[in-house]
Amino acid sequence: MDFDALFNAQLDTLRQEGNYRIFADLERERGNFPRALNHGGSGVRDVTVWCSNDYLCMGQHPKVLQAMHEALDKSGAGAGGTRNISGTNHHHVLLERELAELHGKEAALLFTSGYVSNWATLGTLGARLPNAVILSDALNHSSMIEGIRHARCDKKIWKHNDVEDLRRKLQECPAGSTRIIAFESVYSMDGDIAPIREICDLADEFGAMTYVDEVHAVGMYGPRGGGVAEREGLMDRITLIEGTLGKAFGVMGGYITGSAALVDFVRSFSSGFIFTTALPPALAAGALASIRHLKESRWERARQKQQVAKLRARLDAIGIPHLPNPSHIVPVMVKDPVKCKMISDVLLDDHGVYVQPINYPTVPKGTERLRFTPGPGHSDEDIDHLVGALHALWKHCALARAVA
Amino acid sequence: MDFDALFNAQLDTLRQEGNYRIFADLERERGNFPRALNHGGSGVRDVTVWCSNDYLCMGQHPKVLQAMHEALDKSGAGAGGTRNISGTNHHHVLLERELAELHGKEAALLFTSGYVSNWATLGTLGARLPNAVILSDALNHSSMIEGIRHARCDKKIWKHNDVEDLRRKLQECPAGSTRIIAFESVYSMDGDIAPIREICDLADEFGAMTYVDEVHAVGMYGPRGGGVAEREGLMDRITLIEGTLGKAFGVMGGYITGSAALVDFVRSFSSGFIFTTALPPALAAGALASIRHLKESRWERARQKQQVAKLRARLDAIGIPHLPNPSHIVPVMVKDPVKCKMISDVLLDDHGVYVQPINYPTVPKGTERLRFTPGPGHSDEDIDHLVGALHALWKHCALARAVA
Repeated sequence: MDFDALFNAQLDTLRQEGNYRIFADLERERGNFPRALNHGGSGVRDVTVWCSNDYLCMGQHPKVLQAMHEALDKSGAGAGGTRNISGTNHHHVLLERELAELHGKEAALLFTSGYVSNWATLGTLGARLPNAVILSDALNHSSMIEGIRHARCDKKIWKHNDVEDLRRKLQECPAGSTRIIAFESVYSMDGDIAPIREICDLADEFGAMTYVDEVHAVGMYGPRGGGVAEREGLMDRITLIEGTLGKAFGVMGGYITGSAALVDFVRSFSSGFIFTTALPPALAAGALASIRHLKESRWERARQKQQVAKLRARLDAIGIPHLPNPSHIVPVMVKDPVKCKMISDVLLDDHGVYVQPINYPTVPKGTERLRFTPGPGHSDEDIDHLVGALHALWKHCALARAVA
Repeated sequence: MDFDALFNAQLDTLRQEGNYRIFADLERERGNFPRALNHGGSGVRDVTVWCSNDYLCMGQHPKVLQAMHEALDKSGAGAGGTRNISGTNHHHVLLERELAELHGKEAALLFTSGYVSNWATLGTLGARLPNAVILSDALNHSSMIEGIRHARCDKKIWKHNDVEDLRRKLQECPAGSTRIIAFESVYSMDGDIAPIREICDLADEFGAMTYVDEVHAVGMYGPRGGGVAEREGLMDRITLIEGTLGKAFGVMGGYITGSAALVDFVRSFSSGFIFTTALPPALAAGALASIRHLKESRWERARQKQQVAKLRARLDAIGIPHLPNPSHIVPVMVKDPVKCKMISDVLLDDHGVYVQPINYPTVPKGTERLRFTPGPGHSDEDIDHLVGALHALWKHCALARAVA
């Protein structure tokens, strides 16, 4: 049987739609973020990365790297096993304590990624709680959707960020349901923020559990980087806060925090937690250093806000349309996968600007975009350079400008 | 609603069954594996780890650690994004090339863990290939089972390692099915090995795809550590070889290898690959160094075999029952969760021997065991010490001895 023909047929469809993905082949340069070497194309070239989720450049912070070097020297490379079978290292224990403290919860649990933490936790809660109904925001991340699918419990999708629709869906749940409201604080692709307080009010009214994914917020929002729920004084009203160590904290891994019983429950029953090798001690040590730094230091957050505001203002000044939102994510809408890829290629080849075209399945077809994430490492000159390049491109390509 | 009460009710059941898990809190000591510090209990104590999946102690190999230190200094802590959105680092590209070469395949694809590689790949193949039927060995790992479940395609479970039953199940597949035979080479908990050649013969006869999980074999079997399929000269007959970087290679991460089209297909369509932050460059660099070392060096594999044989012989000499198998895994059967935990506690507290009790859901209830994994780091004195402790315990506790 010619399996490759089966594979190629579906890949050809992707290519015809303009949705076939080519990964940039980068070499990040410590001390020089957001600069990187691009190994793709002809020869190695310098580029400025404008689409990283290492939002605060913590991936190059000396404290993080020192902690990782020390843990490598002390405890070696990998964890050597699952958390249950020889893989729990003291670094994991310390990090879980720190995460619980960061979010004001009794306990925390590490996963190998944010994806796995969402998938495994929602899958476990939905499958094992009696008469569970998961009420899921329509724009929740793929990892949450897969977790809900995995749970095979009842589910209801409510309109994105629409508390009135959430209320209707809560009312529709049968009496005796265990209702779990699952949503994100900052939505990655549009950069909008959930009405957390209103959601918590509804949860109280209906006796529902609240599950919030703060992966695009931890480290960046709240006085200590505890996320949007911290900023709004709502952490104690959230049943479960899920986060990542791989974005603003600059390392890798995911986690949940909540009551001791909740965390012990997921720890004890979740396949995606139990049957996988634990995070390397050095990653746990690096994440711990990063969290501790961002609990104290506000410079990174302030500088990020400043550069985000600057980029937005400059884009407005030349009429480049971008989605308005209250977060650090600046989506410039192109709405066509082929054009989006073309603009990205020109930016890379002619201007040394790397911004990946965002296309299906990451965003719905017809909403293709360039997603810029300015951070503390982007200088004013970097912003000038980017805006100049976009200006030239928009002029050259006769792309739509925002209505002035 | 008192959610904690719901959680605690199910946790209490686990406790009553003796299946509640307490993780050892270890601190691995580089240069001194399999020795570690145990932070659990009262005070910090030295222990010898006898249940690690860092099978060849590569987690402390100087080449691996040097590569990781260098990559940290060069490229920082995390990857900063998904593989598509700024997260592909040159280290990933080099590692994927190396993995393809190791297994004699056109291409390879990295995942954040072996669990995710199985789940995501089987899920994608089963869901997207026309009329897919996954024929799954009855003892396949949880990650494969979850992947098959996720695919929602037809599935057939064949009796463990039973090619006659596999033949029957292949015959039962409707005409026009895309048959995928999914199995492991070395089964983790019993340590037995699949009849790969016979399975490949059946695959040829029925035009089926072969999917083999070699996570407990890569690095350890075959002249270059390519796994059991390499040892038996069968790599070219396997459609897809899945492996891990987190066991014998000593780091973290999972992968698949296969034809360029197959790998591109999974890369392009798999949610569990697409929507997650890439492995840190330093992990990729460490894994690359480890693979390259084990392709050349046979010392680790030879020494592992030697120590496994020694432990088995010593257990036989004192009549401690262990599952016979042709691998490096030495399961001593206890068949009761409470006794298993008790023995493990005494070994730890009185003898400084750490071996985690293996209980449900990792193994079926009633097959609880101690699972020893002797490696190149265990000295003859370590074996003497372990066997002496087991001897005393068996005598003290009147546990069943093997029929002499």
